[in-house]
Amino acid sequence: MRDDEITDVAAYMADLGRQARAASRQLTRASTAEKNAALLKIAELLDAGRSQLAEANARDLQAGAAKGLDAALLDRLELTPGRIDAMIEGVLQIAALPDPVGAIFDLNARPSGIQVGRMRVPLGVVGIIYESRPNVTADAAALCLKSGNATMLRGGSEAYASNQAIASCIQRGLVEAGLPAEAVQVVATTDRAAVGAMIAMPESIDVIIPRGGKGLIERISRDARVPVIKHLDGICHVYIDADADPEKAFQVALNAKTQRYGTCNTMETLLVDAAVAETILPKLGAAYSEMGVELRGCPRTCDILAAALPATEEDWDTEYLAPILSIRVVAGLDEAMDHIAAHSSGHTESIVTESYTRARRFLREVDSSSVMVNASTRFADGFEYGLGAEIGISTDKFHARGPVGLEGLTSVKFIVLGDGEIRT
Amino acid sequence: MRDDEITDVAAYMADLGRQARAASRQLTRASTAEKNAALLKIAELLDAGRSQLAEANARDLQAGAAKGLDAALLDRLELTPGRIDAMIEGVLQIAALPDPVGAIFDLNARPSGIQVGRMRVPLGVVGIIYESRPNVTADAAALCLKSGNATMLRGGSEAYASNQAIASCIQRGLVEAGLPAEAVQVVATTDRAAVGAMIAMPESIDVIIPRGGKGLIERISRDARVPVIKHLDGICHVYIDADADPEKAFQVALNAKTQRYGTCNTMETLLVDAAVAETILPKLGAAYSEMGVELRGCPRTCDILAAALPATEEDWDTEYLAPILSIRVVAGLDEAMDHIAAHSSGHTESIVTESYTRARRFLREVDSSSVMVNASTRFADGFEYGLGAEIGISTDKFHARGPVGLEGLTSVKFIVLGDGEIRT
Repeated sequence: MRDDEITDVAAYMADLGRQARAASRQLTRASTAEKNAALLKIAELLDAGRSQLAEANARDLQAGAAKGLDAALLDRLELTPGRIDAMIEGVLQIAALPDPVGAIFDLNARPSGIQVGRMRVPLGVVGIIYESRPNVTADAAALCLKSGNATMLRGGSEAYASNQAIASCIQRGLVEAGLPAEAVQVVATTDRAAVGAMIAMPESIDVIIPRGGKGLIERISRDARVPVIKHLDGICHVYIDADADPEKAFQVALNAKTQRYGTCNTMETLLVDAAVAETILPKLGAAYSEMGVELRGCPRTCDILAAALPATEEDWDTEYLAPILSIRVVAGLDEAMDHIAAHSSGHTESIVTESYTRARRFLREVDSSSVMVNASTRFADGFEYGLGAEIGISTDKFHARGPVGLEGLTSVKFIVLGDGEIRT
Repeated sequence: MRDDEITDVAAYMADLGRQARAASRQLTRASTAEKNAALLKIAELLDAGRSQLAEANARDLQAGAAKGLDAALLDRLELTPGRIDAMIEGVLQIAALPDPVGAIFDLNARPSGIQVGRMRVPLGVVGIIYESRPNVTADAAALCLKSGNATMLRGGSEAYASNQAIASCIQRGLVEAGLPAEAVQVVATTDRAAVGAMIAMPESIDVIIPRGGKGLIERISRDARVPVIKHLDGICHVYIDADADPEKAFQVALNAKTQRYGTCNTMETLLVDAAVAETILPKLGAAYSEMGVELRGCPRTCDILAAALPATEEDWDTEYLAPILSIRVVAGLDEAMDHIAAHSSGHTESIVTESYTRARRFLREVDSSSVMVNASTRFADGFEYGLGAEIGISTDKFHARGPVGLEGLTSVKFIVLGDGEIRT
């Protein structure tokens, strides 16, 4: 169905939902070989469909330019040949990952005679709500397919034609591999009511994963009637302990801030133990300044670093996503962990120390999705962690936490193997 | 604070929440020895406080009788000496269970040089909303304490004095063991606004576990602003396959219905393959009738069993919690699984079969929290599964699924151990 043919959005969404739910039962029983065959077909069809993808994308870009979208948005929207390559490569990589579904573990005998274990199973139907990057359509569909989930995808209206063109390759690939086309539903209306419907249909959608700006994610989390896997902010900290190796501290703190400025695992606040602030900060401050990083410090930091401007209270709660860094000198580990508890977004924190006891306390007590010792926060990433690919990073504690790969898209049920046992 | 001294419920609840959050940071770092010492102290104080518990309970029972509560409710409310014994025994058993917190697993080296693993950590603050049984106060607090979580408990108003008396033992036990009293908060107001506040304070409560009637749980799930661990219904099925061993089928189907009628893991619908209905049902039907179980069947069942009344469509969606059973003859495994997909509450289903292939399909494809082969559904229980104790049974797929023990009250974060690695 095309956008202009959909008049009753609620009925249309309910239909898509019913189809997705039915398809998810077929996907649950699909073998690894069937799912991989579909992924390879999809990659093949994306490759064969390059000219159609480029045409559709050109229509989106033209419409976007006519609507006056800014350059950054138009850039995100563009499907260059290189981005199509990366999209195809991503699908092939997911085909090569191990299938998490059906794994049985912890199967133990009980005194009653039954054996009790756990089996990894798909979540069911995953709803993805995303903004302008059309490559998300293929990435998300492939991850969900491999983990045995049906998908309902709602992309940004500015990428409508591109998303539909990608969806057409995906659905043909599914059918050619003997799986239902309805396993990947791409919402074909740009009506915003579709989003409201998606986040409130627990009978058809088991979990929503929003990808996009903080405003979108906050709105969806507030209104959703189903669980949401999300992260809002990445306010990440590096704490340089009194017993830090100065060279490791320099390298980690520099890399965590400057390797890329716009990513969620970039450090936004550096905490330094007062005992080493005067030896650590001057060299580090000079290196930041040389790279054009603006420094905002506590009074003690400003005493040590002439280049630092005074930080305000707001700085400690800000994700700059820019060459700006706040720096605070603290009295020790407890004050550092208090600062983190008060200001972190629960994404990633790292301690630099040679102290076994303080490393152990930091690992245990800091309540973030990734907690590190002597490593750059920039490592918090599904590829770096060996998950193969990620659908997002969760800063929630419930269900999946940290980078979410195939396993995060599954659930675990109990299985019981008996021989006619009854309970007495 | 006492009930009649609390005038601003919102401010009172916000205070409790802040205290619980602060206490949860202390519990996260508490050692296993400290948590166990507190549990043993609590058990000791409950034992020493028997007369105070009995007095408080007598006040609740008297007030309940005066308010005209029915006999079943008054029975649930009563703290007999045997129930106090069981409550103390439960706390001691939880002290003896292994501590899930701090476990590190899947620690693997990555090509970058970092080691990446997972660490099991507390969820934070668990809110429990429950009805008349005061023993839940001790059970829930003990499970949450052992798993490193702070607790906010809101029991039924009819059990107010009993819950406060139990809470006093718990809080004294915590303090005597050097842990904060605020780690277990018992809401001291009977104002219903307290429940509304509890389910909408994500800054202070990480998860809500409602325990009680379906109405309470539905209301809380609908309105909660934080994740909810719950199960609504137990509409459990046993499917007797064409290749079932007749004796196992007889034993399992009889036990699943009649061992106890009022539990959530009791079978409510029996499905029988048409190929064996005439050999299996007569003996089974006679056994049910002898035990006073009312039978409601599909037309085919009614042909075979004279005692069966015709089932209505509603029967397939009803949790009787009573000596009533619906029976349906089906054409085979696929029809049985279609029936289960349409009518099950996702709690527990069991197949009786000697067929390897059908057992394997049933295990994989049935989407319930427990899926069994040749075993009574009555085994779906934390103790029977070896979890030691359970705080409830979850029929959701997100986070915990099935009986929820200590592990279900924890989350898992990523940890990274490096040696100064940076990302390039």
